[in-house]
Amino acid sequence: MPNEGSYDTALERSNRVHEDLKVNPGKYTMLTGDRPTGRLHLGHYFGTLVDRVRLQEMGVHTNVIIADYQVITDRDTTKAIQDNVFNMVVDYLACGIDPEKTMIFTHSAVPEENQLMLPFLSLVSEAELERNPTVKAEQEASGHELTGLLLTYPVHQACDILFCKGNIVPVGRDQLPHIEVTNKIARRFNKRYGKVFPEVTGLLTSTPLLPGLDGRKMSKSYGNAISISMTAEETAKLIKKAKTDSERNITFDPESRPEVSALLTTAGICSGRDPRELADEIGMGGGGQLKKVVTEAVNGRFAEIRERREKIVQDPDYIHDIIADGNRRANAIAHETLCEVREAMGMVY
Amino acid sequence: MPNEGSYDTALERSNRVHEDLKVNPGKYTMLTGDRPTGRLHLGHYFGTLVDRVRLQEMGVHTNVIIADYQVITDRDTTKAIQDNVFNMVVDYLACGIDPEKTMIFTHSAVPEENQLMLPFLSLVSEAELERNPTVKAEQEASGHELTGLLLTYPVHQACDILFCKGNIVPVGRDQLPHIEVTNKIARRFNKRYGKVFPEVTGLLTSTPLLPGLDGRKMSKSYGNAISISMTAEETAKLIKKAKTDSERNITFDPESRPEVSALLTTAGICSGRDPRELADEIGMGGGGQLKKVVTEAVNGRFAEIRERREKIVQDPDYIHDIIADGNRRANAIAHETLCEVREAMGMVY
Repeated sequence: MPNEGSYDTALERSNRVHEDLKVNPGKYTMLTGDRPTGRLHLGHYFGTLVDRVRLQEMGVHTNVIIADYQVITDRDTTKAIQDNVFNMVVDYLACGIDPEKTMIFTHSAVPEENQLMLPFLSLVSEAELERNPTVKAEQEASGHELTGLLLTYPVHQACDILFCKGNIVPVGRDQLPHIEVTNKIARRFNKRYGKVFPEVTGLLTSTPLLPGLDGRKMSKSYGNAISISMTAEETAKLIKKAKTDSERNITFDPESRPEVSALLTTAGICSGRDPRELADEIGMGGGGQLKKVVTEAVNGRFAEIRERREKIVQDPDYIHDIIADGNRRANAIAHETLCEVREAMGMVY
Repeated sequence: MPNEGSYDTALERSNRVHEDLKVNPGKYTMLTGDRPTGRLHLGHYFGTLVDRVRLQEMGVHTNVIIADYQVITDRDTTKAIQDNVFNMVVDYLACGIDPEKTMIFTHSAVPEENQLMLPFLSLVSEAELERNPTVKAEQEASGHELTGLLLTYPVHQACDILFCKGNIVPVGRDQLPHIEVTNKIARRFNKRYGKVFPEVTGLLTSTPLLPGLDGRKMSKSYGNAISISMTAEETAKLIKKAKTDSERNITFDPESRPEVSALLTTAGICSGRDPRELADEIGMGGGGQLKKVVTEAVNGRFAEIRERREKIVQDPDYIHDIIADGNRRANAIAHETLCEVREAMGMVY
């Protein structure tokens, strides 16, 4: 975690960019992405997808990387990766990401982006890699030993961002150290070899984290996450299984009633209403009524998206074409950037 | 340094391959290379170049990487890299490396080789990277902080070797740990995703290390190295400046007379004679006579090579074509291997 001072600085900078985006969206290139480890869920939707679509529609140059190599930073298998990537693109499109406006591509398909790893690794020290707090936290959370790939994760993230000259990256506070590494690399490269890369701003989001149905962190492995791709029936079933508590009167109190409050938060975010108001309306209706409200809110919010999804998934060729086209565009951009890098470093023979 | 047991195993394996090379050279693919930090000198010539040419002429598939990214593992500049790469290729050709038989290419020109860094980094742990004794030694020798690029050096060396399915790599004993990392990566990849990569043998050389003219390690920075590209006059001048000692009678005694013995070793290796014999012949001729013998031996040995060099260097287009052609071939091989890797990992979308 950066210290408070640097957090304040980051927040101030992020706010300035948020303001400038309203008037100069075309000045900005956004890079963001997802690890294709499973289906996207409501946490992804409200946490990042809505925002991506908003930036896309504002006229920002938007780029989404499907970070397939990141799958193996903390696991030993790429099982189901084809299926996960395919469904991720389906989810993107269903949620409003427009492949005409947003470049969607897969990490493993862009060698000239990945080559940046080599010069970039020369610009950071072992000590700097070792000291990254977010890498350590991610490693501990995974329970997997720290691989070379996770250790160097901030460096390949720098490649992802800088190959397309990204200058904004939506982040949570815990990811600010990664952005700092990217900027260090960009500054050091520019200073040593000549200006090639932009300064990057971590765009801090004000969206609060959506908890899982049980009040814990939302995660597929906890079974507390509603996937975008679930049917209305699957959604109802999952909500029905959710634990509440023994108090009949429904109140919003995240501290002492995490399960009930998580359900209220879910209903609130899906219906655009205050969870406290919803609690008041349900009152003595108890867990049964609460779950009915949540189910209706979620299924109402996602009805159109899921309908679109159903149509899109019928046409796998269309999805494969979108990936191929995004990869083609990403390769062209990476080629241009790598040529600049080679030129700057004098590696033209 | 590997323990004695593993050194013995490595030596035995190396000897077996040395034997098999005589009968089955076509079974072997060699990868070796040089950092383009300056001109190649007699240490390179007798230590590796002669051997490369020998393997090339035996019918081994020989590949030479000009490891330009390795220049920045322990320094902050790529100054003069174009000139160094150009002259390195000139030296190669002058010394007998035949670009029709040996693929000569530059590291930075082969993105699909470099992309292997990502899956390969997932196959080694931070602890394994940290523990590599040769990396630590190289870092200490350089006096530069340990960069991420030097820390991961054994992994990009694994990419260099494995992208072309290299199965022999000429090494000194201190480089055996690197070969061990390459084999770990190859085995783990094959086990996890299916067989793509071969087992690699470090081919231990029996050539003793040629000391610099002053008896210390030969190094451009010590000014004790005769470059292949020097003229006969430059060679004579450098040898003339070499320190000897106050004893007139010339004897071969590396322990107590390192400078005189280094000069005798140089003359011996260049003329194919025993340095003890040379010492006896010079006897009371002293340092002056010794230097005359050394100068004649070196200039005699390199006369033809330098003559060829003079001709080759007149035609820069020819050199650039050779690099371009080697890079084209390396890219084709890297593309094939990366396709296999993507297929094995299921990363085909």
